[in-house]
Amino acid sequence: MRNKRIISFESDYTEGACEQILRKMLETNMEQLSGYGTDTYCEQAKKKIKAACECPDAEVFLLVGGTQTNAIVISSMLSQYEGVVAAKSGHINVHEAGAIEYTGHKVMEIDETEGKINADDLDSYMRKFYNDENHEHMVFPGMVYISYPTEYGTLYSKEELKSISEVCKKYNLPLYIDGARLGYGLMSKQSDITLPELATLCDVFYIGGTKVGALMGEAVVFTKNNTPLHFTTCIKQHSGLLAKGRILGIQFDTLFTDNLYFEISSHAIEMAEKIKKAFIDKNYELYIDSPTNQQFIILDKDKYDYLRNKVKFSFWEKLPDDRIVVRFATSWATKEEDVEELISIL
Amino acid sequence: MRNKRIISFESDYTEGACEQILRKMLETNMEQLSGYGTDTYCEQAKKKIKAACECPDAEVFLLVGGTQTNAIVISSMLSQYEGVVAAKSGHINVHEAGAIEYTGHKVMEIDETEGKINADDLDSYMRKFYNDENHEHMVFPGMVYISYPTEYGTLYSKEELKSISEVCKKYNLPLYIDGARLGYGLMSKQSDITLPELATLCDVFYIGGTKVGALMGEAVVFTKNNTPLHFTTCIKQHSGLLAKGRILGIQFDTLFTDNLYFEISSHAIEMAEKIKKAFIDKNYELYIDSPTNQQFIILDKDKYDYLRNKVKFSFWEKLPDDRIVVRFATSWATKEEDVEELISIL
Amino acid sequence: MRNKRIISFESDYTEGACEQILRKMLETNMEQLSGYGTDTYCEQAKKKIKAACECPDAEVFLLVGGTQTNAIVISSMLSQYEGVVAAKSGHINVHEAGAIEYTGHKVMEIDETEGKINADDLDSYMRKFYNDENHEHMVFPGMVYISYPTEYGTLYSKEELKSISEVCKKYNLPLYIDGARLGYGLMSKQSDITLPELATLCDVFYIGGTKVGALMGEAVVFTKNNTPLHFTTCIKQHSGLLAKGRILGIQFDTLFTDNLYFEISSHAIEMAEKIKKAFIDKNYELYIDSPTNQQFIILDKDKYDYLRNKVKFSFWEKLPDDRIVVRFATSWATKEEDVEELISIL
Amino acid sequence: MRNKRIISFESDYTEGACEQILRKMLETNMEQLSGYGTDTYCEQAKKKIKAACECPDAEVFLLVGGTQTNAIVISSMLSQYEGVVAAKSGHINVHEAGAIEYTGHKVMEIDETEGKINADDLDSYMRKFYNDENHEHMVFPGMVYISYPTEYGTLYSKEELKSISEVCKKYNLPLYIDGARLGYGLMSKQSDITLPELATLCDVFYIGGTKVGALMGEAVVFTKNNTPLHFTTCIKQHSGLLAKGRILGIQFDTLFTDNLYFEISSHAIEMAEKIKKAFIDKNYELYIDSPTNQQFIILDKDKYDYLRNKVKFSFWEKLPDDRIVVRFATSWATKEEDVEELISIL
Repeated sequence: MRNKRIISFESDYTEGACEQILRKMLETNMEQLSGYGTDTYCEQAKKKIKAACECPDAEVFLLVGGTQTNAIVISSMLSQYEGVVAAKSGHINVHEAGAIEYTGHKVMEIDETEGKINADDLDSYMRKFYNDENHEHMVFPGMVYISYPTEYGTLYSKEELKSISEVCKKYNLPLYIDGARLGYGLMSKQSDITLPELATLCDVFYIGGTKVGALMGEAVVFTKNNTPLHFTTCIKQHSGLLAKGRILGIQFDTLFTDNLYFEISSHAIEMAEKIKKAFIDKNYELYIDSPTNQQFIILDKDKYDYLRNKVKFSFWEKLPDDRIVVRFATSWATKEEDVEELISIL
Repeated sequence: MRNKRIISFESDYTEGACEQILRKMLETNMEQLSGYGTDTYCEQAKKKIKAACECPDAEVFLLVGGTQTNAIVISSMLSQYEGVVAAKSGHINVHEAGAIEYTGHKVMEIDETEGKINADDLDSYMRKFYNDENHEHMVFPGMVYISYPTEYGTLYSKEELKSISEVCKKYNLPLYIDGARLGYGLMSKQSDITLPELATLCDVFYIGGTKVGALMGEAVVFTKNNTPLHFTTCIKQHSGLLAKGRILGIQFDTLFTDNLYFEISSHAIEMAEKIKKAFIDKNYELYIDSPTNQQFIILDKDKYDYLRNKVKFSFWEKLPDDRIVVRFATSWATKEEDVEELISIL
Repeated sequence: MRNKRIISFESDYTEGACEQILRKMLETNMEQLSGYGTDTYCEQAKKKIKAACECPDAEVFLLVGGTQTNAIVISSMLSQYEGVVAAKSGHINVHEAGAIEYTGHKVMEIDETEGKINADDLDSYMRKFYNDENHEHMVFPGMVYISYPTEYGTLYSKEELKSISEVCKKYNLPLYIDGARLGYGLMSKQSDITLPELATLCDVFYIGGTKVGALMGEAVVFTKNNTPLHFTTCIKQHSGLLAKGRILGIQFDTLFTDNLYFEISSHAIEMAEKIKKAFIDKNYELYIDSPTNQQFIILDKDKYDYLRNKVKFSFWEKLPDDRIVVRFATSWATKEEDVEELISIL
Repeated sequence: MRNKRIISFESDYTEGACEQILRKMLETNMEQLSGYGTDTYCEQAKKKIKAACECPDAEVFLLVGGTQTNAIVISSMLSQYEGVVAAKSGHINVHEAGAIEYTGHKVMEIDETEGKINADDLDSYMRKFYNDENHEHMVFPGMVYISYPTEYGTLYSKEELKSISEVCKKYNLPLYIDGARLGYGLMSKQSDITLPELATLCDVFYIGGTKVGALMGEAVVFTKNNTPLHFTTCIKQHSGLLAKGRILGIQFDTLFTDNLYFEISSHAIEMAEKIKKAFIDKNYELYIDSPTNQQFIILDKDKYDYLRNKVKFSFWEKLPDDRIVVRFATSWATKEEDVEELISIL
């Protein structure tokens, strides 16, 4: 009986992968391919990603996961005496178990609002650093990390990104965008930026696969002829080089064929919008007005207990008034019927 | 035309994965499962692995790749002032781009013969260390790393493993066995050891998936109630925690169902034995008398050029007399017809 | 002409060392002593420090500098998955160029007031950590770092230290006290704690020499039979082991003979109190009401320029209203006549 | 009674420092100087060292100890994916408790003879590395470390250094010379090289103070406008920045005034030559024919026990035939009367 299954909006990584990907894997399974990302599927994937970014000179690397990508990109671009500036709530600062510090570098917190830093704060942070007579005894800010969308599902506007990008240029700081959920950001109705524009505004970013249709995998794009020297060796040193690189190649090749990456992202956005509208219509309070696939809702204890029995979602945090913030996430895999069932429950 | 394809014995990671694995992935693809290795497939896989090891109290962790597994296990088990003892030719010492040193620990080389260290050398290494009046100024040997099979495809006998294990106990050194190709070792005709015996003789080892039928994945087994504290956090810190842990769970669950892991390993061994016999019959010189899936052959320049045009294999090294050592590898995926074609070429 | 010399209150490390120390060095200079801290002066120094701490079972190590001591103690006591909790303004978080992160560990900031953290904040920080469902993906708080006196010259009361110590015990966190200026803290009129009491309340602390009468040197005291294993090797690994350990031994032996360390500290406090009284009498505004050897004063631009020409002091920071915070520091070496000259200038 | 004192040739760090240094410290003790190496004594010391090197564009940094200097210089000059090539017996590879690996870099051993590597071995090591098809999976050799004199007191000839230097240039590897005992090398009768010549042949080296007349301190000289960016911050990050930098400045200023460094080094060499001659005359067997201040002698058990009661020296190692290699070291502080007493004992 179908009813036995409890519907879930717990996260955007509860299912496997787009069926196209698995079919392609099966189809190519017995092809004998060279290892470590030197196969034709990796090559094709990179070509398609560069085309999608309208950045033919970009260099693309296919890595396994988000924390890994952050650790490798950040540690490879920083000098020993440098740290990475990030929002206090940034993923690297909170939920990666100190993976950046493990590479020897400080995560330098700056304040954020709903997950976003702003250009003025960054500028004054940098000014303050250089004005400090003692700054030679301090970690040098060596790059800036932001995410699109942020931890709270919010988005920077094009104007905001431009301003941050300008401050970065002023202080010669590479700008790195964590795109673990990039598709869901770009396909949001609130987004006023395209992938090629994003590629222009930063120095390096990654296109998240794990949460957007792939089994796993993130595609790092260096956009300014700025790939760190011997980057493949750095990847190996950080345990990020898969022997069967084909798995990543096939996945990104598939995702960047016939616009698949963007279509599945759009689907997740549509589902999220539906859910959000229902929450609003039924007088739920939004914790954050998120334009992407993660919706944050405030529940009182009763409502929380009630919903908890009907549907899976994530606990986010407890507010000082004891109400509970929860997260409902959609994804490429979200079924319309599950959304409707959810709405009927609310 | 089939003939267009050039047959390849280049490595044991040229194909994808056992079809059973891919089918299972497709079949379970839309199941909504919890992340980070907490799903039922991971649970089942671990249960089956513990049963195969006849070690119900073991703790099993599913990681992504070999270098990653080595870096995580070794750095988590060592104290800050300790290093890991390994054969000069050990994978961690040569072909992992310094991943161990990157975690702050020295790889302490000892001599080897055909990839194997021996108990006496280890014992005298340890004795020498403790006899050195200055040993407080030296890296402390903190664990021993060996591989089964070794880099050269060779195998330790049960006696040899026992002796090494005893020296390790004498000096209170955990013994860690890298089993990247464990199946090919255990299924070798030369092997006189079973998986449960191996589990007993060491403190921690891993069962290689990447080279033995999986897309990727290695199963770490702590056999002595000796899992490092908060090991999951260590895995996360080293970027080894997949959001969709199911991918690893499904693979090892499949591999350890109906003896699959051992059957596909046996197949690779049979194919390798056939090739080896052919080489011997046709008066090729073996570089090493390998009992496993990697065969090392010495070729003179003419023969090398001749074969190079007919079949793919790996360059291994050049000998002082300018002859060339090459490697032919079989695997779970090797086709009997390819082996026959190879033999006809020799 | 004496007047040519401009008087200085720039820092507490502008002079060399207590003359008794230099005389003792000269006197013992040609004695042939064993190296690396195994000499009789080191032994005597440790004995005297343990006696001063009334902690006969303590283990004492003599290191070279403060940043070094922090890096060695913290990295040796933390597990790989742990970080150190510190005030946002803590020395390790701001002015040690990322030395802690370089050892792979996160500095986990908590809020502070005038350099001091409080027990309640620490408790709720810890509660929040363990309540987070995702805390296995986060750095574990592994020890607490405070300083006595703090960066702003302020002091914890005995009650405050006890409360922090209790929270630490509750969560099984070692408490580490950075005593770079410990003498100036203990000898402050506001201090309600003795050295033995401080030793009881924490798990490890250091007695600062560099800023309190020595050429350089800090004495680490482990008070709970909790010295990390092979700590001497850790010191060596972190480049903290002096071949001529005697230099540290002689200095601490001298400082802890006939109460010297405390007497010179008292002198600095007296000088600081005199200066502070003069500032107050002459209607200067204190930035912080510091009870120790560092006095923080707010100056408007005119006063700043006027004083700048007459006396040396440290720029601390610019306030939003453009007034300037400056620091006047006294030390064991401060001459009463210089204090009087300063007062006449104000 | 003087006779109570047992004479010692245990090491070259058994005494304090040249009396001139201590006198200068006393004389300047109450001068108020700026911290962290920005004082006039540091400035003068650096000027004099550059003059002695005939290298006016060199950049000089004064650090505390040898292990520290090696860790800071090497980690600052290497990229993340690089290691340092050193003799198997090199100090960084054996007796620094893994300080280099702790910074994340591999020490890449090559063979040595009496502590010396040779240019041909280095060249073939590099050729082999670049010929390896897998070298992207290996640590890149990023600099070469040698010592002058070596661990065994031996010296490279000018020709040998030139050849090594040429191989380094060929592969674009900086050459770093550890000069912990540089004075004793340059003043050896066997030395055919001057300080300015040595400065020309390498990219960076250090002039050892700890073992040559100073309380502690090593002067790093970058000779090719190649100081790593923000090197002071790197020093701070590695805990190598003394608040009272004057201690290092005064010492090197003194040592490089009136040729003192070279004169005291010559004295040690004269004393060593005397001892060596006596050993030879009395038919002792030299383990190594050392031209510097360390003399390595082979003793049988009886002789060892006999001497052990009369004079202090260092145990070096036990030979397979059970005879014992011991070391007698002279230094700037060795008294002629002690040498004579030793000779009378032999």
